[in-house]
Amino acid sequence: MAATSVFTQSISTIPSSSSSSDVSGKSQALKLGVISSFSSSSSYSNVFKSLRISCGSSSTSNGGGRGSCLGTKMVSSPSVLSPKFLDFESTVFKKEKVTLAGHDEYIVKGGRDLFPLLPDAFKGIKQIGVIGWGSQGPAQAQNLRDSLAEAKSDIVVKIGLRKGSRSFAEARAAGFTEESGTLGDIWETISGSDLVLLLISDAAQADNYEKVFSCMKPNSILGLSHGFLLGHLQSMGLDFPKNISVIAVCPKGMGPSVRRLYVQGKEINGAGINSSFAVHQDVDGRATDVALGWSVALGSPFTFATTLEQEYKSDIFGERGILLGAVHGIVESLFRRYTESGMSEDLAYKNTVECITGIVSKTISTKVYFLTLIIMLSLHRNCGLMRPVYLSLFQQGMLAVYKSLSEDGKREFEAAYSASYYPCMDILYECYEDVACGSEIRSVVLAGRRFYEKEGLPAFPMGKIDQTRMWKVGEHVRATRPKGDLGPLYPFTAGVFVALMMAQIEVLRKKGHSYSEIINESLIEAVDSLNPFMHARGVSFMVDNCSTTARLGSRKWAPRFDYILTQQALVAVDAGTPVNRDLISNFLSDPVHGAIEVCAQLRPTVDISVPPDADFVRPELRQASN
Amino acid sequence: MAATSVFTQSISTIPSSSSSSDVSGKSQALKLGVISSFSSSSSYSNVFKSLRISCGSSSTSNGGGRGSCLGTKMVSSPSVLSPKFLDFESTVFKKEKVTLAGHDEYIVKGGRDLFPLLPDAFKGIKQIGVIGWGSQGPAQAQNLRDSLAEAKSDIVVKIGLRKGSRSFAEARAAGFTEESGTLGDIWETISGSDLVLLLISDAAQADNYEKVFSCMKPNSILGLSHGFLLGHLQSMGLDFPKNISVIAVCPKGMGPSVRRLYVQGKEINGAGINSSFAVHQDVDGRATDVALGWSVALGSPFTFATTLEQEYKSDIFGERGILLGAVHGIVESLFRRYTESGMSEDLAYKNTVECITGIVSKTISTKVYFLTLIIMLSLHRNCGLMRPVYLSLFQQGMLAVYKSLSEDGKREFEAAYSASYYPCMDILYECYEDVACGSEIRSVVLAGRRFYEKEGLPAFPMGKIDQTRMWKVGEHVRATRPKGDLGPLYPFTAGVFVALMMAQIEVLRKKGHSYSEIINESLIEAVDSLNPFMHARGVSFMVDNCSTTARLGSRKWAPRFDYILTQQALVAVDAGTPVNRDLISNFLSDPVHGAIEVCAQLRPTVDISVPPDADFVRPELRQASN
Repeated sequence: MAATSVFTQSISTIPSSSSSSDVSGKSQALKLGVISSFSSSSSYSNVFKSLRISCGSSSTSNGGGRGSCLGTKMVSSPSVLSPKFLDFESTVFKKEKVTLAGHDEYIVKGGRDLFPLLPDAFKGIKQIGVIGWGSQGPAQAQNLRDSLAEAKSDIVVKIGLRKGSRSFAEARAAGFTEESGTLGDIWETISGSDLVLLLISDAAQADNYEKVFSCMKPNSILGLSHGFLLGHLQSMGLDFPKNISVIAVCPKGMGPSVRRLYVQGKEINGAGINSSFAVHQDVDGRATDVALGWSVALGSPFTFATTLEQEYKSDIFGERGILLGAVHGIVESLFRRYTESGMSEDLAYKNTVECITGIVSKTISTKVYFLTLIIMLSLHRNCGLMRPVYLSLFQQGMLAVYKSLSEDGKREFEAAYSASYYPCMDILYECYEDVACGSEIRSVVLAGRRFYEKEGLPAFPMGKIDQTRMWKVGEHVRATRPKGDLGPLYPFTAGVFVALMMAQIEVLRKKGHSYSEIINESLIEAVDSLNPFMHARGVSFMVDNCSTTARLGSRKWAPRFDYILTQQALVAVDAGTPVNRDLISNFLSDPVHGAIEVCAQLRPTVDISVPPDADFVRPELRQASN
Repeated sequence: MAATSVFTQSISTIPSSSSSSDVSGKSQALKLGVISSFSSSSSYSNVFKSLRISCGSSSTSNGGGRGSCLGTKMVSSPSVLSPKFLDFESTVFKKEKVTLAGHDEYIVKGGRDLFPLLPDAFKGIKQIGVIGWGSQGPAQAQNLRDSLAEAKSDIVVKIGLRKGSRSFAEARAAGFTEESGTLGDIWETISGSDLVLLLISDAAQADNYEKVFSCMKPNSILGLSHGFLLGHLQSMGLDFPKNISVIAVCPKGMGPSVRRLYVQGKEINGAGINSSFAVHQDVDGRATDVALGWSVALGSPFTFATTLEQEYKSDIFGERGILLGAVHGIVESLFRRYTESGMSEDLAYKNTVECITGIVSKTISTKVYFLTLIIMLSLHRNCGLMRPVYLSLFQQGMLAVYKSLSEDGKREFEAAYSASYYPCMDILYECYEDVACGSEIRSVVLAGRRFYEKEGLPAFPMGKIDQTRMWKVGEHVRATRPKGDLGPLYPFTAGVFVALMMAQIEVLRKKGHSYSEIINESLIEAVDSLNPFMHARGVSFMVDNCSTTARLGSRKWAPRFDYILTQQALVAVDAGTPVNRDLISNFLSDPVHGAIEVCAQLRPTVDISVPPDADFVRPELRQASN
């Protein structure tokens, strides 16, 4: 059966959007366990064969010149790295296999029922030092303390802060005190801990890593929530000291989300923010279980494996992309377009920011498990038989956004999607490579040094962005917004946003990231962690108040997305450039949709609730504004 | 005399804008030879003492937070590198000393009267291979050929091109032919030449340097017109082969200007584009004279010394700054501001682009030598004596722009200048450090590789930017523009542009560049080479048609300038933030103005003439559009 063999091959080697249509159907079928014999359905492969051919043929007409990235076609040789190097073994937690878009990946499900395993996972650890009180510090310290208490463990969670830090008061208010031995000096805490969670800012890590390393006990464990430090060490040809273990647990959401969902989810087993984990060095075999225990204690619904390197690449890239930088650039560009074409400022704001952070995010996020079997009658070309084809109808995810639109709305979505996909990918691709080659990390380190006077040049701390017209309009819109209002589903904005999301997914996929990482970094973190906060306070508030690395990245990359959309995508729409039907077909049939559904099923249906005055301001800013 | 000793010290170590006022007066006085005893005038130092003190005190109140770079104050410890390492010896040409802002620098004046010296300078050279036919290639090859012919030299100037290159026809049209042995294959030309001018694009140099090196004859000379290749080699820990000399002559203008002024100036001794030169390796002592001969043959009015490293830093930085990227960002930001406040599109275009590329550039460029002595009566605080103070009234340069404004215009200029200076410097400073650390060079190399499909991701050649609203308006404005019209002198635009220019000068100054390099890279190249072309065809045409490295840089940095001006400077103006008087005083008294006048005197008064259809399109684009 020639058709079947082609089909099989395409699964194992070509899970890209160019040939994704067939893979999509199969992976969903496998995942949902609908029909195990489905993969031999040669009719199925024929249904999509014509699509694949049309993609292939159009890839030859790739012209340069004006708006050239709009003429770009997918190439046909995607290579996704095998995720086998991400396999791991745990003696404490149960490893489970998930199949995402045809790829087997391994995870550990979380849950409060696993807290009794924590003492076993943390064997040999008497004190966990949580260093820093920024975004992740308060969240992780409190979650760890609460989880360990529930496990009746006597492991001490101690906060370590720089002498004179204004955060001492906040840590005390959260119940960490010098008297109880749970709050102290940074260096004493590091040297007295068996597990050191280094949750100070990236720039501070870059400036202080030598002293941190020198303070750590031999055979103790360094825990990171971000691979940045590895990237910084690599850029200088250095590595971690060999006498300590180095692990990472990286929640795919900012600290306040990690804490908020843990608290909200106390009654619901498994509520929380997903995390990736990595074991970079393991001096005594404990590293994997300690990392998994740490992640379970944070409340991660599921924990997937990565490497420190893959983590920093996807993380730094992601926040410059759809998580912050790109979404900022998009709304600036579209707000300008809408107002220039006569839309009122309030409505333009609603049709950009409110639309994305509200209804679009909610629709992508909502976890409704709904499976419909449709029997399609498909003519098998070779034998003329009619056979049933099973498809699932998505009621969530990016497809739900599209499907909830009217026919006119769909056309508008498609025009926006088609015009924006490659321009967005153009910048995302550049950004990924700048991160991967170390330039972006170096840029962050250099920027941190420009915050202070040097070499005769003045200090340049970051300015705020929230005083421009658009964000003033936003203040007004939010002030008059009915409670629970999610804004209008404006098809053009939705098309650009979803195109950006798909482009980011594609870049990460082609750069060899696991689907777990791709989906968490491109979709779940956006719609379940960041966008709800942005809906409460505006995009600008997030751009002005998140981590220094992300704030710097957003300032660098948002304008790039704005300009390329304005210069390439919007002029193409205005010039009546025909919709690239291949792109739309690829979007509709991309295997990522099925993989997203699998990931969603691993999380309970607890949505984050963010009040309008949600406070996630970094302590130093909070102090400064007082 | 305490006052004098402070003053002397400030000259030798503090030529910054924070304390520049006193230095300015002195260096001008020295330069113009007005009064040699002037430096002992203690009244003079006292006149400006209060200014310096006020700068010093305000630098302590450097708060973070909203619009923080606006609150930035100059620091008081600038260190300018001694230019001594840039001294050189020539046995053929006359080295002259110029004093720029109190610094002695060495130059060689050009002139057609020096062409007879070329055979001596080029001793041992039978063939000069000019590799590439992009921007510099055609200009330099033709200028060299014409100059050598005038010197009755039999040195062959031969063009080397890749097999099948479309540029063969253009080189033939310019009189280089296979039959005469002046046109041939790239590799044969390299291996047959004693001096190889490698004028292919930066990206092509990065991809082909190994073969170029391997083809070169031992003891032959590699000539570059840009230090990019050194930066690329450095980023990989490599260097040039040790058996060749490596020199550079870097015209401070694009190729078409180099040729156009040479032709226009045939009747006027010394007309042309200034060049820097560098000797990176000298295997047999000939390097300096060959480099100077090359520069003289190109028609450089004066040639100043630099290093390859200083050259690539200032050059790549400069084109991302005021030469292209920043000027693009500025006009986008201001055009939007003006139209949003109700100005008609045509007028907004005139008040941004036409203003900068026309009247402002012309005013800065115009070479009128006019010295007025004014006797100011200055009260000597200590002894109550009245003493004369001599100042020169500038009739050109940045000060002339300011001085030609009405009182209302001056106030508007000051508001714009004060609000824009630090935001512009913020981005310029970041850009300089990104260039200096190698990130920007890596970014260019990586971008060049994304022009083609790789790793399953599609090709992303650069798109054009000229289809947006602003540039369509520009087409219309130019089409209806009276001949010779230089646009309106709009004070707000002029204030932003001059603030950008001053900020760029300050960054280069603090980073240790010579005044010759600073002034050529920040001012002369802008107003005498690039802006006249932009006035003829629009900024977007330049952004779409200059070198790949510059086009990439403009796409990266223009949006950054746009955003920071919009987010910081314009909102500050709208909020009625008071003008920073120190900044205005520093601008008015900066020693760079005197240094610019010295540089201007080294050039004849030949202005470049650019017709509206001026063709400086890169050959590959010209072919593609045919």
